[in-house]
Parts: sequence; C-alpha cells; structure tokens
Amino acid sequence: MIQVGIIMGSKSDLPVMQSAIDILKEFNIKIEVDIVSAHRTPKKMFEYAENAKKRGIKVIIAGAGGAAHLPGMVASITTIPVIGVPVKSSNSLDGWDSILSILQMPNGVPVATVALNAAKNAGILAAQIIALSDKVLDTKIEQYKNSLEKKVIDSSKTL
Amino acid sequence: MIQVGIIMGSKSDLPVMQSAIDILKEFNIKIEVDIVSAHRTPKKMFEYAENAKKRGIKVIIAGAGGAAHLPGMVASITTIPVIGVPVKSSNSLDGWDSILSILQMPNGVPVATVALNAAKNAGILAAQIIALSDKVLDTKIEQYKNSLEKKVIDSSKTL
Amino acid sequence: MIQVGIIMGSKSDLPVMQSAIDILKEFNIKIEVDIVSAHRTPKKMFEYAENAKKRGIKVIIAGAGGAAHLPGMVASITTIPVIGVPVKSSNSLDGWDSILSILQMPNGVPVATVALNAAKNAGILAAQIIALSDKVLDTKIEQYKNSLEKKVIDSSKTL
Amino acid sequence: MIQVGIIMGSKSDLPVMQSAIDILKEFNIKIEVDIVSAHRTPKKMFEYAENAKKRGIKVIIAGAGGAAHLPGMVASITTIPVIGVPVKSSNSLDGWDSILSILQMPNGVPVATVALNAAKNAGILAAQIIALSDKVLDTKIEQYKNSLEKKVIDSSKTL
Amino acid sequence: MIQVGIIMGSKSDLPVMQSAIDILKEFNIKIEVDIVSAHRTPKKMFEYAENAKKRGIKVIIAGAGGAAHLPGMVASITTIPVIGVPVKSSNSLDGWDSILSILQMPNGVPVATVALNAAKNAGILAAQIIALSDKVLDTKIEQYKNSLEKKVIDSSKTL
Amino acid sequence: MIQVGIIMGSKSDLPVMQSAIDILKEFNIKIEVDIVSAHRTPKKMFEYAENAKKRGIKVIIAGAGGAAHLPGMVASITTIPVIGVPVKSSNSLDGWDSILSILQMPNGVPVATVALNAAKNAGILAAQIIALSDKVLDTKIEQYKNSLEKKVIDSSKTL
Amino acid sequence: MIQVGIIMGSKSDLPVMQSAIDILKEFNIKIEVDIVSAHRTPKKMFEYAENAKKRGIKVIIAGAGGAAHLPGMVASITTIPVIGVPVKSSNSLDGWDSILSILQMPNGVPVATVALNAAKNAGILAAQIIALSDKVLDTKIEQYKNSLEKKVIDSSKTL
Amino acid sequence: MIQVGIIMGSKSDLPVMQSAIDILKEFNIKIEVDIVSAHRTPKKMFEYAENAKKRGIKVIIAGAGGAAHLPGMVASITTIPVIGVPVKSSNSLDGWDSILSILQMPNGVPVATVALNAAKNAGILAAQIIALSDKVLDTKIEQYKNSLEKKVIDSSKTL
Repeated sequence: MIQVGIIMGSKSDLPVMQSAIDILKEFNIKIEVDIVSAHRTPKKMFEYAENAKKRGIKVIIAGAGGAAHLPGMVASITTIPVIGVPVKSSNSLDGWDSILSILQMPNGVPVATVALNAAKNAGILAAQIIALSDKVLDTKIEQYKNSLEKKVIDSSKTL
Repeated sequence: MIQVGIIMGSKSDLPVMQSAIDILKEFNIKIEVDIVSAHRTPKKMFEYAENAKKRGIKVIIAGAGGAAHLPGMVASITTIPVIGVPVKSSNSLDGWDSILSILQMPNGVPVATVALNAAKNAGILAAQIIALSDKVLDTKIEQYKNSLEKKVIDSSKTL
Repeated sequence: MIQVGIIMGSKSDLPVMQSAIDILKEFNIKIEVDIVSAHRTPKKMFEYAENAKKRGIKVIIAGAGGAAHLPGMVASITTIPVIGVPVKSSNSLDGWDSILSILQMPNGVPVATVALNAAKNAGILAAQIIALSDKVLDTKIEQYKNSLEKKVIDSSKTL
Repeated sequence: MIQVGIIMGSKSDLPVMQSAIDILKEFNIKIEVDIVSAHRTPKKMFEYAENAKKRGIKVIIAGAGGAAHLPGMVASITTIPVIGVPVKSSNSLDGWDSILSILQMPNGVPVATVALNAAKNAGILAAQIIALSDKVLDTKIEQYKNSLEKKVIDSSKTL
Repeated sequence: MIQVGIIMGSKSDLPVMQSAIDILKEFNIKIEVDIVSAHRTPKKMFEYAENAKKRGIKVIIAGAGGAAHLPGMVASITTIPVIGVPVKSSNSLDGWDSILSILQMPNGVPVATVALNAAKNAGILAAQIIALSDKVLDTKIEQYKNSLEKKVIDSSKTL
Repeated sequence: MIQVGIIMGSKSDLPVMQSAIDILKEFNIKIEVDIVSAHRTPKKMFEYAENAKKRGIKVIIAGAGGAAHLPGMVASITTIPVIGVPVKSSNSLDGWDSILSILQMPNGVPVATVALNAAKNAGILAAQIIALSDKVLDTKIEQYKNSLEKKVIDSSKTL
Repeated sequence: MIQVGIIMGSKSDLPVMQSAIDILKEFNIKIEVDIVSAHRTPKKMFEYAENAKKRGIKVIIAGAGGAAHLPGMVASITTIPVIGVPVKSSNSLDGWDSILSILQMPNGVPVATVALNAAKNAGILAAQIIALSDKVLDTKIEQYKNSLEKKVIDSSKTL
Repeated sequence: MIQVGIIMGSKSDLPVMQSAIDILKEFNIKIEVDIVSAHRTPKKMFEYAENAKKRGIKVIIAGAGGAAHLPGMVASITTIPVIGVPVKSSNSLDGWDSILSILQMPNGVPVATVALNAAKNAGILAAQIIALSDKVLDTKIEQYKNSLEKKVIDSSKTL
C-alpha cells in the first residue's frame, strides 16, 4: 500500500521534487507521484486530498512555487500530515512567495514546511514520521544519519 | 440580483473589509457578504466559487491574511473576475505573507490584487468593472473621482 | 473598436508584455499596443488616459519596471479599470520596486495588480472583465480554463 | 508515557508555546514541558535530544526566537520528528530571524516548521503524526477539524 | 520670490513635512506649501510642475507615502531639482513602498531621495543647493553644521 | 574650474559610474574623477571633502557598494550637495546594503540618493543643480529632456 | 588604564548601550563612554579612532542607528578590534539599515557585528577578547556563562 | 601552538573560507582547518568547542550557510571569541538566512559576525584580536592597512 503521496503543482517542479522520490525509495517506502495543481486542477486536488487517507496514505508531500496554495489546501481537506516544499520556480520572487504561502498557515490547519527546494528533507521527515511505527525503517534512518556524520568526518580528512 | 460577492477568511477581517461594503453601498451596487475560509471551510469555498456565476454575481472580492489562499482558490474555480485584498492580520508578517500569497498567482489564474488592507479600492475596482455596462454607475464613479479631487483642493486651502 | 489598450513604459518591456498581446489575440479581443512612459512622455500618458474611455477602450493593461508609476498615474486620470503588470527590468531590485510602486495605491485610485511579469494573467483578467457582457468570449474563457486543467491531467500521465 | 516533548529556549516563550500545550491536552496526549536553551544550556539540550527517543517520546515541539538554533540542533541529534515554532521575541527582527534560522535546515536534517508564533499548529501537527497509529486520536482530530468548519459557518450567520 | 516649493500628497503628511518647512524658515528661505496629489489631483500636479520654473522656484520638495508617485511625476515634467521624501504613512508597508517608489526612478529622470520621513534633510539639501549662488545662506548652513557638532560635544559632557 | 567631483570607493565601481561621467561631459560640465575609499583611504576622503568647496566644486557625486559610507561621510564634512549612487557590487546583498547605507542618513546630514546603479541620474541631477545659475546649461537640459520624450515617441512607431 | 571605549552616535542610543556598560563594569573592566557621531562630529571621530590605540584602549564598542557609519569608520582608522552594535533607532527601518550599514564592510576593514540592540553581547565579546591575556577575567567569564546555564535550569523548575 | 581554528559546516564552504586561511598565513598566524557540521556532526562540534581553549586556541572562525548554527553553537560551549562568517551557499536565500542565523544571537552568547562571504575580514579580525598581545603581529597588521591605502592611491593614478 502507498505510504507517501508526492504531489507537485507542475511538471516543472519535478527536478526539485525528485530528491524526495529518491530518498524515500532508498528507505524502501512505497510512494506515488502525481501532478496536482491547486489552481489548474482544483477538483483533482480536492479528490486527491479527500481520498488519500482512505487509500492508506500516511503522509503527503506537496511541492509548489509562487503563490503556492497546494500544500495548505490539501491540509485543509485531510487530517493526515502534509509536508510542504517551497519551490523556487522561475517566476517566483527568489522563493519568498513560495515560502510564505506555504509556511504562514492559520491556526487549525498546519503544514510541516521544509526549506526552499528541500524536497530531500521532506522525504526524510516523511520517513521519520512513518518510522514511529516501523522499527525496521527506524533503524534505516539511524543508519542514514550515521552515514551523514561519517561523510563529513571523511571529507574533513581530505583537507 | 447580487452583483458583487464580498467574502473573507475570518470574521476578524470584517473591520478591514467593511470599507468595500461601504463604498459599494454608496454606489448602490447590490452586494452580499459572507465568511468563507479556504482552509476551514474548503467545501463551502468550492461551492461558493462554483455557483457565483450562475447566481449572477459579476465580481468577487475576497480578503484574507497570512497564507491567504482564498482569492486564488476562488479564482481557480470560477471565471468571473476575482479581486484579492491582502489583510494585515495579527499573526501575519506585517502583511508580506498576505500580499505574496494573493499576488503571485501562476499563469492562467489571475487575481486582481489591491494594496494591503485596501478593501475600499477593491470596492471601487469592482464598481469600475460593473460600470463598463452601466452608464448610471459610470457617472457616479466619475462624480466620486471628482469629489476626491475637490477634497484635496479644499484641504490645501486650510493650510 | 479597440477594447483593450496595452501600454508599457519602454520598448524593453515588450518581451514581457507580449504574452498579454498573445492571449488577447487568442481570445479575438481587439487590442492596441503602445509605448507610453509616465516619466519620459508624461503628456502622451495624460492624453492617453484622458481619451481612452471616449475612444471606447474598456480596460487598460499597463506594464512598467522599477519605480513603476505608469499604471497608477493612468488610473488617476481615467475611471476604466487599469491592470498593472510589474516588470522585472534589468535595473530593478528583483522586481520588489515594480511590485510595490504598482500595488500600494492609495484609497480612491485602484490598480488591479497581477504577479511579477505576469502579463498573460493581465490579458486573461482583461478578458474576464470584458466577458461579463460578452457571452461568446465568456465561453472561450471557460474553454481556456478547461484546457489548462486538461494539460495538467495529461502531463501527469507522462510521469 | 510522554508522547510529545514541548521545549522552548526561554521562559519568555511560554505565552506563545502555551497554545501547543493546550491543544495537546485537549486531545488527551501526554506531554512534558521544559526550558531547554541551545545557547545557554547546550549540554541539557544534547542530553534531552539524545534521550528523547529512549524515553518513548514520539514528537518534539521546539520553540525559539531570534537566531533560533534549538529546533535544528535537537533535530541534528535525534531521529524522531522535530516541529519548530518560530517565536517573535522582543529582540527579533519581526520574526524573520526566527523563521529563517528554523526553516532553512540543510539536507539531511529536517525540521517541520510552522508559522510564526503558531504553537497551536505545532500541537495539531504533532497530534496528526501520533494519530497515524492511534484510531481514537484520529477521530478526535477529525472532530476538531469539523468543529473549525462549524465555527466559521456559525460566525457567518452572525453577519 | 518663492525659492522652494514644498508639496505633499495628503494633509496627513504635514506632521512629517513640517520639519522641512521649519528648517527652511530658519534659513530665511522663501517657501510655499501646498497639497498636491499625483493620484487625486493629477491636473493640479501637472500644472504645478509645469509652472514651477517660470514662477522662479528653484527646488521642489515632494513628500508622499505608499505608492508614492508625486516626486517622480513632478520630476518627469520639470527640470528643476526635485527632492523626494518617503513618508511612512499608516497604510504603507513600513515605508518600503514609499522608499522604492521614490528612489528607483529610471534613467533620465532623477529624484534626489532622502531617508524615510527625513523632511528636515530635504530642507537642508534644498538650502545647500540654493546656497551655491547665495553666500549669506552658505554661511548660515556652515553655522548650522557647526551647531550640530557643538550639540553632540555638549551632550557628551552630560554623560 | 572643476564643477562636479565624481568619486567612488573602488576602481571596480567605474563601469557603473562611467555613465555619470558621460552625461556630464555631454552637458559640457567640467568634472574630475577619483578613487576615494572611506574605509581604505579615510584621510584622503577627509581631505577631499574638506577642500572640495574651496576648490570651487559645486556638487560631489559619490558611488559605493556594500556598507557604503563614502557619500554620507563626505556629506558630514562638506556643505556642498552630495549625490549618492548605491552600487550593486559583487559582494553586496543585491544592493540593499548599499541603498540603505547611503539613503538612511540622520537628520542634519542629507545625501541626495539616486536609484541603484543610477550614476546617469546622479549626473543629470548634478547638472540640474548647476543649471540653476547657468542659463545655457539649463537650455541643454531641457533639450535633453525633450530628446528623451522624442525617443519614446519614435520607438512607439516601430511597434 | 581604559581597556574598552564605548562610543555611540547619539545620546539617544544610551538606553540601548547601557547594557554594554553594565556588563563590563560587572566584569571589572575599565571603560570610558562617549558620544562620537561620524556624521555630526567627524573630526572628533577621527581623533578618537586615531588615538585609541596609543591611549591603551584594546577594544572599541561603537553603537549607531540608521545609516550607521560610526563602527565602520572607526575601524577604517584604527587596527584595534571594533565591535559594532546596530541600534534600532526611531527613524530606522526596523533596524535593517543599521544592521547592513555595520555588517557589510568591504574586505580589509572588519567590524565585529552583534545582533540588533545587543549591546550586552558587545560587552561580553569585548571581555572575551581581553580575557585572552587576563586569567582572572577569563575565570569570571566562565562563571558568568555557568550562571546563565543555572538561571535556565532554575527557571525550568518553576514551570 | 594553533592560535586560530577555522571550521566550516561543509567542504563546499572551502572556496569562501580559503581567504581567511590565506590572510592568516600571510600574517604568520598558526591555524588549523576542519570540517565541523553542527547538524551532521553535532558530537564532533561539541568536542571541538569544549577542547579548543584547552588546546590553546585563541579565536575560532566558523563559516556556514543556510540555517547556520555552527558559529552560535560553538559560542554556546566555549568562552573564547567566535567569529561567524555567513556563507552564501547554493541553497540559501541569497544569504539572508545565513546572516540572520549567525548574527541574531541572544544575550549572553555573542558571535562576532562579519559580512556575507567575508572570510578575509574574519581572518583580519582574528589577527587584530591576537595582536593585542603580540607586538610583531600588530606591526604587520598596520603595514597591511597601509598597503590597502596605497593600493587605492595607486589605482586612482591609473584613471
């Protein structure tokens, strides 16, 4: 069963969102990837958000640029955790618009926002959430964290 | 028949949005006022946007603060002009979040954005749009514009 | 008769403003295009704004960069709706100056502002306004909106 | 067993963080509250982060203002999800420093950031995460979401 | 003969602009003060700018808030130096909109911009410009500069 | 006799400052050009500012990037008008640091600030100031202004 | 002999700068306090900076608001470490101007910048620098650091 | 004995940090260079900070980008002066995140922050601090400062 749904407002967001896909595959988490635009496919967006939980999805990762309404609108419809990835698209104001549109949600409807273009961190965060009830995954994440540390230690030896 | 629908994300936006109500009443334009939250009442928002045109509404004025998705989401569903009013709410970043969330819409889905808290201008803009096919209203707007000029001229005499 | 006047402060704004021209032509709306600089041709700007309504123009789209006074000054002279397009010109502060100079108009004189460089949305917004009294155009806009949705649906199939 | 640890950099953050405490109590989730300063009690911070998982804590909510390092540093040490609350403290730059210090984490170490001062949303997000393996809580969150909708509907009747 | 024309977009700008009036009176420079709104009295603005030079005015000080077009538009019509004072009005974005609308003028049409609300400096700058051909005034300005220095020296003695 | 002194903090500012040199030469105004760094040659800066007036210089144009102290420090020492040009240097924060360091001078010490990189406007402004007591130059500036208008009119014919 | 010179651009900066005075007195470090304005007393500033080292001063703490040139100009003249305190004065842009004017110094002339209004940290930093060759002071600073930790631990007990 | 420890969050920061290494070598100051990531190697960071003083290190220069916690966290553990270099990394918000994360430290824990990417200035500042008890180094720094002045004087001759 799909555990993480990765959606984005436009196919042009895929190069950024790919790193969420990659890290979740590395963790052997079942994912699905789709283009869902809050502004151009509002009905698809509604249906996606309404059905996600019933379909067994545990976490939704939503990436969008500019006036990025996708993460917040999905969060307004479902109660499963939504992780928002602000995308620095070509027509955005250096990403400030994406960040503020995703982050500054009103009380009652949270979006777990990660850094600009940080789809990888969205993937890791989704994995951390799922690992709360998955010991095997939890161990993998600990190993991943250790590998990050080791890489830095190793790189310091090359100075 | 209602010509302008004025909606806002929260009743706390009413003090700001009141000046849109007042100016449109001054122009004798039929309005309706409602609380429609993109994030807390997404279904109502969808229905409102889907039905507005059928109900004869010509322009929608939508005000919201913070991650302000209401104007853009309404514009994603209907083809009648949507005027967005960024509201400087208590939990907003001095209004920058409201402005960028409303203004920076992607190609295909415009929102006619006015200045921060400028609900009065939203009302005037709605009137200007309706006046394109309403000669009487058009004359009223010209008179209003003249009165603005006169007020400045008069105020300069009091120096 | 010309329905939409598209003006810009400098010929260097044309690559950005072209998408307003294109979309309005696609909608079969009669347009005119001119260079009108608030700062270098203030008299032409005044005359343009004063005569637009008499000449039957229904909507003016005005694009400018930097301290972008063209949309607001035109709106100060005419009562027909003015749509402002902030242009990210080479000497602007990443577009922030254009946005704020166009958006933050005082009460009484609205400018319908669209996103940075979003001339296409200015064209669509102008079409939406004109469609309020033009059923054929209204249908075209609905078809356009549907085509946007279809494109996203199709692009999601290519993933 | 404690499910959510709520920590903050200073007791002066408590008025903001209280709404996380309140909403989690409303959901009957077991919490603990502590002052843990990354800058003034780095050892306590380290120990807290290192031991949280062993102690059964599932989610950490960390609030801080200014150069807000607490959420990111805790996330660097533990693999359980960390939710960061940017606090607009008296000596912060309108909260921009808190937001960027918490949000812009490097790849590998995510912090789930919520809006400025949005401790309530941090609480709801923590609940949503825990509810993934707690049906009773899940129902409560759905009821809470419905109550938000009802409040807006009711408030619109008072207009 | 009037040497400096001080104009402002609204009577509400007077408390800020008063310090330009005061310092110029202190320097015995003949001034006039008027309300001239680019947006609400565009014709008066045009006439003011067109006639200023013929009337013997040497420098124009123009203050405005929000989308502050007055200084730049006056500078587009006359060739005498225009000093712009960005005013932090109640509906401005902390003054950023006023600053950028006045400062970021395109090549060919300069506005001598001073700090936010710094009408006093606008007055001093106007005096410095006039003093280039007025020895008596030049001496007064030097004395004023010396008095500034003396005040700081004196204040340091009170520590 | 030199009428305008053009100084800049670094030779790397010359490409930007060249347009001030060019326009002033076009107006036949006698200029001098020098590298004067507030931070690396503070004594030269002091002497330059102290002697400028005695040497007959009427206006100083000072360009600098980053923490741009040159215009303000020169203005603190002399009473002749100082025009500041914020330069967008490679190590500046998109020019925001240069703009704010030059513009936000305290009361008593004005700097006439022009737009980012707008050395041409600094030159025109200096010419406008000098033209107040130079009829021939005044006519040249009027002709220049007319030529700007003509260029726009001509460019609109090429559409 | 005076070890730390604390200077500020205006007596109005004293309430902010007082905490530097207080903490240095607490550490028994000999200080002097003076008003030295880069813009209004440039000669005094020059002399202060030129003589500081000869007079045995080891560190200069300089606070200023707005276009804050004092720290950078002092650093341009002396080679002893200069600590800059950006002051959020009433006429500053929320402190952004002070921060950027102090922080963004060009290569060759560093200013050790602390947070907005953080005069206390400037004092502690000065003490840390002096303690490098003063064992007694070094111990005091360690005790101070421990006391900070203890206060947080104690405050967490009052929850 | 090592006098200055230069650390950075990632090997990708080395091109920026190299200029600190170069200038300190030019001053014959003994340095060490290491990769120490607050987020990926928190334990190494702790140990580095805890042991630096015992190992005789007098100043630590720490560079980092994005949510840059390294300088502040090191400063929270040691009492020797920490100089922070905000690095404009590829995934940072034009460096604003790095600057604010490093600069806006709370009272009690100062970081001496230099300009964006200004590792050279960090090196000079470290040298100035060490020179307080090293006459030979002090002379070298004075010579360096003189050479900066000479270079500007020379470059002005090439105009």
